[in-house]
Amino acid sequence: MTLPPWHGQQALSGAAYSAVELDEDDRRVYVLDQRLLPLEERYRICTDVAGVVTSIGDMVVRGAPAIGITAAYGMVVAAGDGVTLEAADYLSHLHGVGATLMASRPTAVNLAWAVQQGLALASQHRQEPGTERWQQMAAWARQIHRDDVAACRQLGQIGAACLGDKTTVLTHCNTGALATGGYGTALGVIRAAWEANKDVQVYACETRPYLQGARLTAWELHRDGIPVTVISDSMVGHCMSQGRIDAVVVGADRVAKNGDVANKIGTYGIACLAKLHDIPLYVAVPWSTVDLATPTGADIRLEERDPIELTQFAGQRLTPAGVAAYNPAFDITPARLIEALVTEKGALDPRGLDRGGC
Amino acid sequence: MTLPPWHGQQALSGAAYSAVELDEDDRRVYVLDQRLLPLEERYRICTDVAGVVTSIGDMVVRGAPAIGITAAYGMVVAAGDGVTLEAADYLSHLHGVGATLMASRPTAVNLAWAVQQGLALASQHRQEPGTERWQQMAAWARQIHRDDVAACRQLGQIGAACLGDKTTVLTHCNTGALATGGYGTALGVIRAAWEANKDVQVYACETRPYLQGARLTAWELHRDGIPVTVISDSMVGHCMSQGRIDAVVVGADRVAKNGDVANKIGTYGIACLAKLHDIPLYVAVPWSTVDLATPTGADIRLEERDPIELTQFAGQRLTPAGVAAYNPAFDITPARLIEALVTEKGALDPRGLDRGGC
Repeated sequence: MTLPPWHGQQALSGAAYSAVELDEDDRRVYVLDQRLLPLEERYRICTDVAGVVTSIGDMVVRGAPAIGITAAYGMVVAAGDGVTLEAADYLSHLHGVGATLMASRPTAVNLAWAVQQGLALASQHRQEPGTERWQQMAAWARQIHRDDVAACRQLGQIGAACLGDKTTVLTHCNTGALATGGYGTALGVIRAAWEANKDVQVYACETRPYLQGARLTAWELHRDGIPVTVISDSMVGHCMSQGRIDAVVVGADRVAKNGDVANKIGTYGIACLAKLHDIPLYVAVPWSTVDLATPTGADIRLEERDPIELTQFAGQRLTPAGVAAYNPAFDITPARLIEALVTEKGALDPRGLDRGGC
Repeated sequence: MTLPPWHGQQALSGAAYSAVELDEDDRRVYVLDQRLLPLEERYRICTDVAGVVTSIGDMVVRGAPAIGITAAYGMVVAAGDGVTLEAADYLSHLHGVGATLMASRPTAVNLAWAVQQGLALASQHRQEPGTERWQQMAAWARQIHRDDVAACRQLGQIGAACLGDKTTVLTHCNTGALATGGYGTALGVIRAAWEANKDVQVYACETRPYLQGARLTAWELHRDGIPVTVISDSMVGHCMSQGRIDAVVVGADRVAKNGDVANKIGTYGIACLAKLHDIPLYVAVPWSTVDLATPTGADIRLEERDPIELTQFAGQRLTPAGVAAYNPAFDITPARLIEALVTEKGALDPRGLDRGGC
């Protein structure tokens, strides 16, 4: 285990671990390598923008809010690299970095949202001394990290109020402290319910091919002492038909203006099954995941990843050599299947987002 | 690769490989170890009943028709063990073996069906010389193996006629030569369509936790040159919503009198999604899988297997130590979600089985 320098102190995540943190020197980004969990807790130290970009692209860090914060810290590293540059060159440098960061993963809106905020800040302060521009960028990035944690805590409480006092919740993928600045979105709702002394049980879909549920969600909930049972994604329908599930709570990578939601592959199927079994589906997101500039789910670009994630595990081949695999990383859940969009602004009808969610 | 003695000759399966074969000596049962596929093609040689029982229980061999045939060969081994026994002791011996075989896996009806046929034969010939009883048992077991292959070829043609000339079929688990005496049930339908020169493409669900789709179905279809694409079980809804799937064809482990079907976990969810997307679901089974003595799906005992199949892969832990997992091996698909039950007797409405399927 590689211990980051802030270990044992209060990380911005508010937890003993953090998906991503910026070092005090404003130059190094610590990224918890989620590919190694739960077997190993090791941080990758990114000392340049390229390291930040590959950490996102290779899924060392994942989860829409967490990759937004990571990108913001990437902008800080870029601002540090550009302290000696004149205003125009500084801006041009940051735009280049921003474009590279945005290309690292296409579906989650938080990444583009963070980069664009960083670029606006850079433009505003471009005439100021290099070290000041850098400090401002670092202060801004840490603030969006803190804001994300605060939003998750707020939406967690709002979502928890939607759940019964004794409830069994199904969740998909990982939406916890590891996927956000800290605390979590769907797992934030579950954590808030648990902290409010509700009798909460969780079924976690293992979430093939990357196993975020089996590896990460189980790891987080088990650390917190919240009862969790892992199932394969194929068991959802059976568990629902047996009456084991009271509610489904998931996160999202992007919410379109019409309330359609892009989230981890499998969410759409779960949403259909929930509707059929009359089980409410809550989508928990900070407002930064809502993208009013994207009209509908059909307008969201869905990332397709390397089939090797599906055909191999830990270097061992699962499928025969030469067999094709299809590996879409996300799917679209239409607004009509969603009971409520749980944000820090309230539990909203997703079909009313263009009217402020009312 | 351990080569069985019949290698290179015509196996009863009709293929170059066989899930199970009885040696010419009527004493040794060759079971292809499906846990090692597609990485290794190795046969386990069972020289006693205990070896046959663990081959079924440990899923060295799996698939309802294949375990039925394996159990029949287990009865042959038992008959060989009992050549010197008097009639009453012989029957008692075979009943003991039959009970052990039936307990090895509870859901598939074919296992009990084969054991009961074997016991009836033993009873009928109990007074005859031991070697003759043994030969009769061997001849009977080989005949049900041949009958299964013939039934699969017949139902394959019937099912193929239900498919369009250009069709993309989704299938779940493995229902091929490996799961039967040879040829396959749902894969038999796909093979027959391919042999009839239909333009067939297959999406194979990987089928967690045991990965029968990724490992076995992909292996069989790839050997036959039939185009196959592996997806994770969580991608079914997305693929259907994209219009990628024209029909779903699956097998079954037991069909109840009311047409409800027990099949590999995940089938029920796929059936719900198919209904929602207006895609026909065909369940392909030899008539030996129809169990008119079981009134409804609710009366079928669903096997729950060791959670370790879900929490570990190839000896590596996927979930954190101490985290619970739930591992039901089968689920129930109600008759109303099934377009037709494809058997060697015809493509039947599953809701009319008690009226002969008409």
